Amino acid sequence: MNSHNVAVVGATGAVGREMQKTLEERDFPYNKLKLIATERSAGKKFKIKGKEHVVEAIKPGIFEDIDIALFSIGSSPSKEIVPQAVKEGAVVIDNSNAFRMDDNVPLVVPEINPEEIKNNNGIIANPNCSTIQLVVVLKPLYEMAGIKRIVVNTYQAVSGTGKAAIDELDKQVRDYVNNKELKSEVYPHQIAFNILPHIDVFFDNGYTKEEMKMVRETRKILNDDKLAITATAVRVPVFYGHSEAVNIELEEDITTDELRKSLQETEGIKIVDEYPVTIMTENDDDVLVGRIRRDNSIENGFNLWVVANNLRKGAALNAVQIAEKLVK
Amino acid sequence: MNSHNVAVVGATGAVGREMQKTLEERDFPYNKLKLIATERSAGKKFKIKGKEHVVEAIKPGIFEDIDIALFSIGSSPSKEIVPQAVKEGAVVIDNSNAFRMDDNVPLVVPEINPEEIKNNNGIIANPNCSTIQLVVVLKPLYEMAGIKRIVVNTYQAVSGTGKAAIDELDKQVRDYVNNKELKSEVYPHQIAFNILPHIDVFFDNGYTKEEMKMVRETRKILNDDKLAITATAVRVPVFYGHSEAVNIELEEDITTDELRKSLQETEGIKIVDEYPVTIMTENDDDVLVGRIRRDNSIENGFNLWVVANNLRKGAALNAVQIAEKLVK
Repeated sequence: MNSHNVAVVGATGAVGREMQKTLEERDFPYNKLKLIATERSAGKKFKIKGKEHVVEAIKPGIFEDIDIALFSIGSSPSKEIVPQAVKEGAVVIDNSNAFRMDDNVPLVVPEINPEEIKNNNGIIANPNCSTIQLVVVLKPLYEMAGIKRIVVNTYQAVSGTGKAAIDELDKQVRDYVNNKELKSEVYPHQIAFNILPHIDVFFDNGYTKEEMKMVRETRKILNDDKLAITATAVRVPVFYGHSEAVNIELEEDITTDELRKSLQETEGIKIVDEYPVTIMTENDDDVLVGRIRRDNSIENGFNLWVVANNLRKGAALNAVQIAEKLVK
Repeated sequence: MNSHNVAVVGATGAVGREMQKTLEERDFPYNKLKLIATERSAGKKFKIKGKEHVVEAIKPGIFEDIDIALFSIGSSPSKEIVPQAVKEGAVVIDNSNAFRMDDNVPLVVPEINPEEIKNNNGIIANPNCSTIQLVVVLKPLYEMAGIKRIVVNTYQAVSGTGKAAIDELDKQVRDYVNNKELKSEVYPHQIAFNILPHIDVFFDNGYTKEEMKMVRETRKILNDDKLAITATAVRVPVFYGHSEAVNIELEEDITTDELRKSLQETEGIKIVDEYPVTIMTENDDDVLVGRIRRDNSIENGFNLWVVANNLRKGAALNAVQIAEKLVK
């Protein structure tokens, strides 16, 4: 196939919009592009590569002429609709949590495990946003020196929750400026000028689903079931871009320069001196790394600061990069 | 002494104002209260315990009738003025970094090492804000089970920088709401809707002064020169309250319930279920702890979320608590 029929499912959401933009910016070689969403969003119009596209509602047969479908509609809807798309002949790249830990579904970051793509049975899973930027950095170090243990703490943007959360932070700062009472609907607490150590539901072990996604998905992508990793996932009053403080204990002794060089040479990573800040990711698709320094509290220890655009590399871009590998 | 003459030096700053409020709220038994500041702030008036106080400029002899002087004027001014106050007969409780690591100066958190107060030679140092809330939590665990290693990442409010930084965050969100360009003067980057992994100056080892304060002061307060600890200090767009993700590796095996109980029984700590958020510290002087859970990536590992008011327990309240012990 030289040209393909592509669908974006969940086209009107925060990630869906980024998928549209990413396909356009990277001049993805599609023949036809279908924008698909729920009944509620059907009829909305978007201009892509100079051509108007009208959003269509999901219905039987809608995927019959589709080769590749990029899904971003959340876990429960994906469980329902993805099998339909596969049955109707599309290969699905799904951004939800629905299939990520399924043994029959490859979980892919194209810089890391592109070879997994060919093992798909109709579904390829896009990892969680906070996992993607982490594994992009871990992979070269894992290969170079082995990883003994990781402690990661996140500083995650509200756009990871979706458009309603972006609106809630925006509304709360407007209400602050206008001396009005701040109201919370999306989050259980005020998010403006506040820090919430809570992303997604809590499990019995005291961890959130987001934290366990980072643990399990990292193990699956690095293909190491025993990898020692612990995470604290935290929501911060930032619109776009996730930041992560990553503490790594390596198996083998390498110098700080060797570590830096290895990251510098990795596709998709950019070292920022003296350090990257979150808003830099609004115009940069790379995973930005800084604050590289030895952790003397332990042998072979390092601290890193890792920042990426959660909607782009953390979601839409990674999905489109998978699609690009798929059509090659 | 049953009643004392007390001075607040730097009385018009963010911490100085909190010192005034804290002395009033806790009905500190002073005979006379002097508010002292630089020439520029002299003449400003504040009402405390119903009585008007006029800010006086620093000048020779101003401490001659003072028993206890609470200083919050920054490191360089403290180095200059504190010796004058001591010479004129005051005991100084200094909130700056000037004397903290001096072997002749006790570094005190009253819940932890009140016995050090009597070893003062005229100066008692108040620890760094991010250190205080950390050691309050570490101390009972250190005594109960020993501590092998700590990895701490902070989420620190702009009020830690001072009034100019509070104003800068406020101004930036107002400019955002009014569609104006956001300008940065206090911080090297925009702080609204952004995360800055940078607090205080950088050292050659790649760490910031704030991070090394947490390492060195924690070791001094716990009286353990070898304590393994690494820190990443991060500024977040929050006005008041520092949050910390604390990963602890204990020497001995204890249960999560034992750990929780030990913290629950510690003076100055409150366990918040299911978790504390930063703005809770605006009306709570305790160190708030939540997200207590076992870290299975290592033996005897735990993760905690620790939040406190950086201007109160992290500065003014701790200083006043030291003064209270001093007068007993």
